[in-house]
Amino acid sequence: MKPYQVIGIGNALVDVIAPASDAFLDQIDVQKGVMQLIDMDRAVALYGQIGPAREVSGGSAANTIAGFAHLSGRCGYIGKVRDDQLGAIFAHDLRAQGADYATIAAPASHPTETGRCIVLVTPDGERTMSTYLGATEFLGPDDIDSDQMAQTDWIYLEGYRFDGAASHEAFAKAIAACKGAGGRVAITLSDPFCVDRHRDAFRALIRADVDLLFANRAELLSLYQTQDFAAALRMAADDVAIVACTDSADGAHILTAGQHFQVPAVPTNVVDATGAGDLFAGAFMWGLVNEAAPDLCGHMGCIAASEVISHIGARPESNLRTLFAEHGVL
Amino acid sequence: MKPYQVIGIGNALVDVIAPASDAFLDQIDVQKGVMQLIDMDRAVALYGQIGPAREVSGGSAANTIAGFAHLSGRCGYIGKVRDDQLGAIFAHDLRAQGADYATIAAPASHPTETGRCIVLVTPDGERTMSTYLGATEFLGPDDIDSDQMAQTDWIYLEGYRFDGAASHEAFAKAIAACKGAGGRVAITLSDPFCVDRHRDAFRALIRADVDLLFANRAELLSLYQTQDFAAALRMAADDVAIVACTDSADGAHILTAGQHFQVPAVPTNVVDATGAGDLFAGAFMWGLVNEAAPDLCGHMGCIAASEVISHIGARPESNLRTLFAEHGVL
Repeated sequence: MKPYQVIGIGNALVDVIAPASDAFLDQIDVQKGVMQLIDMDRAVALYGQIGPAREVSGGSAANTIAGFAHLSGRCGYIGKVRDDQLGAIFAHDLRAQGADYATIAAPASHPTETGRCIVLVTPDGERTMSTYLGATEFLGPDDIDSDQMAQTDWIYLEGYRFDGAASHEAFAKAIAACKGAGGRVAITLSDPFCVDRHRDAFRALIRADVDLLFANRAELLSLYQTQDFAAALRMAADDVAIVACTDSADGAHILTAGQHFQVPAVPTNVVDATGAGDLFAGAFMWGLVNEAAPDLCGHMGCIAASEVISHIGARPESNLRTLFAEHGVL
Repeated sequence: MKPYQVIGIGNALVDVIAPASDAFLDQIDVQKGVMQLIDMDRAVALYGQIGPAREVSGGSAANTIAGFAHLSGRCGYIGKVRDDQLGAIFAHDLRAQGADYATIAAPASHPTETGRCIVLVTPDGERTMSTYLGATEFLGPDDIDSDQMAQTDWIYLEGYRFDGAASHEAFAKAIAACKGAGGRVAITLSDPFCVDRHRDAFRALIRADVDLLFANRAELLSLYQTQDFAAALRMAADDVAIVACTDSADGAHILTAGQHFQVPAVPTNVVDATGAGDLFAGAFMWGLVNEAAPDLCGHMGCIAASEVISHIGARPESNLRTLFAEHGVL
């Protein structure tokens, strides 16, 4: 048995969450529901325009790992913060949830700060994100410990981190060490625009090394440049051993070993959609390492996603095991 | 018409809110429901023991002013943060709510950090607070602008700030300037143990200068060193023009001009009791400056308190004016 079941690698961010109207999104000229990258000047200006906010640790893969840790899975996380107050908050929340987190923070003298994601939540529960990457952009191969990578069943790569060249190298180093020791590779496509920015790199990596692909409908359509969802699912299933594709209120599609499972979503009152895909992935992988059937893994993912969108913030607040039991999947 | 209706002076803190069990409170040896002061070493150690948290701007008087600003009252706040990330969060949240906030932050070279309050919320919704004061402890008379104090109808003093000698001087300077220009003085007793630490100073100030006293039952009993609540209310009414004393699920007592109003609490599901008294005071004062009758002011206070305890965090999330209208007090 390896010490770790999953190690996630991604953007270490603190979410700054504020309610906003649709009119405000228009006013600041952002596209609803997507993630845009912003620099520090824009982050400061935008922060000055939004209403009172609250700060909750986020980061896509970090949310996934937090969910996995919440379920008592053995896991770790790699992502870079700066040695500042937000960095301390990020590190605390991950460790307090039970995940290992040892990435060396950029020193206080570093010209960046800990990255943050300004999450504007509209009355319909949709989230629109503006991300200042800051220190997390500087994750490089030196932050990857090959010995640790050899000690995990899975690594989980966040697509967003494809936005940094040094992180491509970091991913390559992690994959080589993990696969060299018999481990497997999961990836999430993160965002349709992120896929658009890095389509070739994603496709090459997916065909070469990925065993488990997480995506949502828009991301998968973008990856395969088609409007035919069924065709995109088939292409993905040809590329990787396991496809887990979420489809908002229509639940999720799990394709593996020639089978195609459609898993219904778990209805809830959507308060803040942030983290739905992240928690789906965390719960799915927890089911997987505990040898649950693929459709049950999908059910677990949908239950966890439903929990996290029922409140503000992208980390679980209710006991997911209890929810799994209530839904009869545990 | 003066530019300000209320200016609050208090501890500028960011709340670090985490769920906790009663057993955990025993384990870390804190008394449930009260506020204890801790130093930075203890704050770091305690933070390392608690679970994943979220950060929301707090500070008792700051919450009161945020509630008053939320209601579109003309208001300001005085309290000291350091020039750091938590300080920026505190300042943003207050200004974004519509309050003036211009206190000069302690420089980044200052040996403290922005103060924070670790709020542990037990399953019953009760909050237990451990406060690292940090920079806020250094609020002194130089932070008080006498001209500004002359331009407000009311100043609102946070009892907690009695824990600092320089702040006594700051309060005295603020009171002199405010009263000298025909303004009035409100104070909140904050906490029974805080009353215990500064009873004589509180009593002297209340008799000499206070026009409006906010307290809860335990604080008022502590102030007058009695177990007879009715007697304590009478003594308070002899000391100040308006007494507004909350009594948890039993609502509030308003005593003024020889009258005694009992205002019922507004039932709700208590998620996090943090800020109940603060928002009561903010809404009460908003009623007062808008010349609502004393019992209506009390109703507004109870409605606002009910809103803030129905969710995590001590700042209003629902539209209080809408709630006032629904309850027929507007």
